[in-house]
Amino acid sequence: MLTPEDRAAIHGLLADYGHVVDDHDWDRAHEVFAEDFVFDRGATGRPDLHGIADIVANFKGRNMYAHVTTNTTLVENPDGTVTGHSKFLGFPNEGQPVTGDYHDEIVRTPDGWRLRRRRAEIRARKFFD
Amino acid sequence: MLTPEDRAAIHGLLADYGHVVDDHDWDRAHEVFAEDFVFDRGATGRPDLHGIADIVANFKGRNMYAHVTTNTTLVENPDGTVTGHSKFLGFPNEGQPVTGDYHDEIVRTPDGWRLRRRRAEIRARKFFD
Amino acid sequence: MLTPEDRAAIHGLLADYGHVVDDHDWDRAHEVFAEDFVFDRGATGRPDLHGIADIVANFKGRNMYAHVTTNTTLVENPDGTVTGHSKFLGFPNEGQPVTGDYHDEIVRTPDGWRLRRRRAEIRARKFFD
Repeated sequence: MLTPEDRAAIHGLLADYGHVVDDHDWDRAHEVFAEDFVFDRGATGRPDLHGIADIVANFKGRNMYAHVTTNTTLVENPDGTVTGHSKFLGFPNEGQPVTGDYHDEIVRTPDGWRLRRRRAEIRARKFFD
Repeated sequence: MLTPEDRAAIHGLLADYGHVVDDHDWDRAHEVFAEDFVFDRGATGRPDLHGIADIVANFKGRNMYAHVTTNTTLVENPDGTVTGHSKFLGFPNEGQPVTGDYHDEIVRTPDGWRLRRRRAEIRARKFFD
Repeated sequence: MLTPEDRAAIHGLLADYGHVVDDHDWDRAHEVFAEDFVFDRGATGRPDLHGIADIVANFKGRNMYAHVTTNTTLVENPDGTVTGHSKFLGFPNEGQPVTGDYHDEIVRTPDGWRLRRRRAEIRARKFFD
């Protein structure tokens, strides 16, 4: 059962993802990402990213200069992990803001809640037409 | 008095509104909307929508392909209902993102918190000039 | 130690900032701003704003017609104040939505939690390139 403190910590974690990657505050990356973190980019056809080193390398050359997280729902699983579903807004260097979904696996570690897996899917315009 | 669990459930509900309508996940509509739900569209001059069937029909042809909810405040009323005020961001198929306000009536049902009434008002540019 | 009720109140406060300034609901300004509030605009080269009267005068002529707050993290300080870090989205009358950061000092007053200081920094495109 997630306590109010767990929920506050997880919402703070999801907020900090945006702060850390947008500020390139890589000294704090371990506060956000589990050591075995996987960024699942299957939706884009690009290879997954594994661990913090991959994340840093990827975001150094990124096109999105701001990552905003909203609409978070959390479901606790029988094994104690948490499945998160959020929307994101991304601000690309060129063009209008985009939106999409984060599907997250969030785990409790000795140091606190961390992201273990994130799948990001841009939401296409006219997706359901 | 809203408990932390009530607040978490209501924030999850408001988040799920976006997930359900944007994903056209209508099997879960009853998790968001009370049976007697009313979508008050008086601000647009269009008729109100009543119940889930109206909602589904409306969103199937919608122009907004993503609905983001932020800036939520909750006030508990003497009758136990909750008045919610949020901002939304909407992503239309054509043109830039828009913003506006959701004014909600949220009720506790035997199955959990549900939206009973929502009034959505687009915020016009230069609204106060 | 911030209780769940403190956190709910502070998140409501940060949400209400947007509602009050965007609705020009100045009768409620005292619910958001501490009497000695300072709006630190050093990042823009403009002078700071002091107190509610300055805020009202400034927002009457503002270009941003909507203020959205997301990605909030809260850190309690030894003196009982809270340091908040959020992202914002701003909707200007002309052009696309912008984003940036709010760095806040939030204080407990006899009437509840209030903003005592806010520094707003627009995030520039290609900030880190």
